[in-house]
Amino acid sequence: MAALKFDEVPFVRVKEGVQRKLIMTDELMTVLIDFSTGPWKMLDPLHSHPHQQTLYVAKGEIVFFAKTNPDHHFKAGDMYAVPSGKKYTIKLLSETARRIDPFYPVREDFL
Amino acid sequence: MAALKFDEVPFVRVKEGVQRKLIMTDELMTVLIDFSTGPWKMLDPLHSHPHQQTLYVAKGEIVFFAKTNPDHHFKAGDMYAVPSGKKYTIKLLSETARRIDPFYPVREDFL
Repeated sequence: MAALKFDEVPFVRVKEGVQRKLIMTDELMTVLIDFSTGPWKMLDPLHSHPHQQTLYVAKGEIVFFAKTNPDHHFKAGDMYAVPSGKKYTIKLLSETARRIDPFYPVREDFL
Repeated sequence: MAALKFDEVPFVRVKEGVQRKLIMTDELMTVLIDFSTGPWKMLDPLHSHPHQQTLYVAKGEIVFFAKTNPDHHFKAGDMYAVPSGKKYTIKLLSETARRIDPFYPVREDFL
């Protein structure tokens, strides 16, 4: 699918309060991910993946935690680059948020 | 640079009414591109690049034209995937717009 019209493609539920839509080429996948049950009291566990990733905060506020970094407080318009294998997690500060997350290569586990 | 705080990193001017900020890993580059002189009367010429690309319309309305496709009218929230070598161009319909454009591999010509 080359075009993803937001109003025509349903979200895929990831877990309570987290849902996504995605689009891809052969080796690039971009995930629109919406959060709706903030603010969070707890952090998710640190996780990592071999995929390179960037993230763009389209709406809301999140804190980004990574093992070897200072914490970053991100709001709409801010971006972050995640190298392969970096351990990180986030905490949602706002009630809702949207991130745009490109990955290289494709996250086969999202298909 | 791992983090791009929108308020702290200046735009790079591309041309009149077009400016960008970008972030990258080794092989993934994501470009935030803002348009400010719409609506356009004319189309830019068709162009292509070997890089795979997706695009996310964060704000505004654009029409996406590609040689072998129907035209697509995109508004905020819509996404598109551009395979390597595909010829396309856009027309800005709104006064301003913002796109988030991930590329694989890195656009060396943007550095």
